[in-house]
Amino acid sequence: MVATSANKDQLYIGIDGGGTKCRATIYSHEQGVLGTGLGGPANPLHGLDRTLESIMVSTQLAIENAGLSLSEVNNMVAGLGLAGVNLPSLYKQIIEWHHPFKKMYLTTDLHTACIGAHEGEDGAVIITGTGSCGFSYVDGQSTILGGHGFAQGDKGSGAWMGLEAVKVALLDLDDLGPKSAITEAVKAQLQAEDAMAIAEKMAGKPSSVYATLARRVFECANAGDDVAIAIVQDGAGYISDLAAKLLEKNPPRLSMIGGLAEPLQAWLRPEIAARVESPKQPPEMGAVYYAEKSFLV
Amino acid sequence: MVATSANKDQLYIGIDGGGTKCRATIYSHEQGVLGTGLGGPANPLHGLDRTLESIMVSTQLAIENAGLSLSEVNNMVAGLGLAGVNLPSLYKQIIEWHHPFKKMYLTTDLHTACIGAHEGEDGAVIITGTGSCGFSYVDGQSTILGGHGFAQGDKGSGAWMGLEAVKVALLDLDDLGPKSAITEAVKAQLQAEDAMAIAEKMAGKPSSVYATLARRVFECANAGDDVAIAIVQDGAGYISDLAAKLLEKNPPRLSMIGGLAEPLQAWLRPEIAARVESPKQPPEMGAVYYAEKSFLV
Repeated sequence: MVATSANKDQLYIGIDGGGTKCRATIYSHEQGVLGTGLGGPANPLHGLDRTLESIMVSTQLAIENAGLSLSEVNNMVAGLGLAGVNLPSLYKQIIEWHHPFKKMYLTTDLHTACIGAHEGEDGAVIITGTGSCGFSYVDGQSTILGGHGFAQGDKGSGAWMGLEAVKVALLDLDDLGPKSAITEAVKAQLQAEDAMAIAEKMAGKPSSVYATLARRVFECANAGDDVAIAIVQDGAGYISDLAAKLLEKNPPRLSMIGGLAEPLQAWLRPEIAARVESPKQPPEMGAVYYAEKSFLV
Repeated sequence: MVATSANKDQLYIGIDGGGTKCRATIYSHEQGVLGTGLGGPANPLHGLDRTLESIMVSTQLAIENAGLSLSEVNNMVAGLGLAGVNLPSLYKQIIEWHHPFKKMYLTTDLHTACIGAHEGEDGAVIITGTGSCGFSYVDGQSTILGGHGFAQGDKGSGAWMGLEAVKVALLDLDDLGPKSAITEAVKAQLQAEDAMAIAEKMAGKPSSVYATLARRVFECANAGDDVAIAIVQDGAGYISDLAAKLLEKNPPRLSMIGGLAEPLQAWLRPEIAARVESPKQPPEMGAVYYAEKSFLV
């Protein structure tokens, strides 16, 4: 990114919103990163009001962290990378929001993650956090794969893994499925005594709550539990397939981002794992770059 | 059921509520069935207000159908068999409802279905409609199996089958899963052009909407589609296991109830299919019997 004299002290705020949390970073060319803030879930698929609230909480915390006055928000150029806005109806709802920024530029969390991971250069990313999705940007062409939301899509994600864990526990406790160490792990984490208590605790819960069980599945798999190994292999197999499909577009780099990127790494197919490189910058910095690039056009 | 002179003209209303619809039947010993009414979804797991509304709609329609005045509701003894009230918190919410009946007795839809299917005698039932669940009542002991709700439980149900169908279509359209006739069937039914349109149409939808896709899976399976056959076999295998477990309790009879009972029959294991007998009375008559038995104790 090149700073022009007109742009040098312009304040940018990059916001990365997903199913579990929302991160904001305030940046200027003159001073670099000024402050950061962390808010709650910001996936509009699971609630517009909650998403806007999380965006504003992370924004305010970043402003406080930067030692700025809250009214400065009106001078900031915002870049938003949000999960779910590949769905046209959700994109429209967010873009029509009466936001407090000087300007607001909206794109998917995939796009800003990709910009961040490769510092604006071509590349591909796979996000495996609460949800899962693949994205590549090569020679001006973008490709999205997966990311169809919980529970119908997002295979290999934390929420998918958590749902599979709950299914295993319920079948096991009814003696209608294989025995697995997952059952005790789910009971312990949910503080639930039996199948009915598990069902009641999870009924109607959002994907972020299911995702909290994903670590338990990895623990059981790493301890040798066959059922857990099968779940992790199924999820990692899908992520490997997703990566292989993105690599067909010949991106110079491929990065994995999100809470499951690290534990999944060891379960990917070796030829895929060998291609995964660390992201150069976090998604919220990708959102800053996106805001700047859009603003200076 | 024995009618005493005091009971002969007492009006009973039996209400059977599930994930897709709610049926009410008004009955007296003197006149038999006086009227019936059909309302919308009545599974409190998916919304208490909607459930109470569906109960009142079906009640009012049954009263009109019987040619009675609406104020007669205050003289009726109601029996309610509702999905979801095996969860204690939901049972409490319904039982604390300021209902309009003279008396209200609440139990699970499984229990009233079982009473109806075997005319109050011992037996077992499997419900396979929007959800799935097993229940037996033998020698004063009741057993519940499954019924843990969409999407974590209810394997072999219409909603489970619909979700599996959507998953297949999304993976197929991303070229990350096997080709299946299910994909075109899902696109046609949802009037959705591509994966993103399917994801958007189904995002956040209740189990009853997923269940509308179940018939398409059976159609594809019966036409020889391997993916559809695998889904139906997986679901029917679970229902067969559920039946086998209920038969360990030695119920004199076993019935299957709900929209999927008929299409699933051909896919059950032969030794299970041979044991399935038609229900003698519908669940709403079971709810009438339950109301009467509870009232006359």
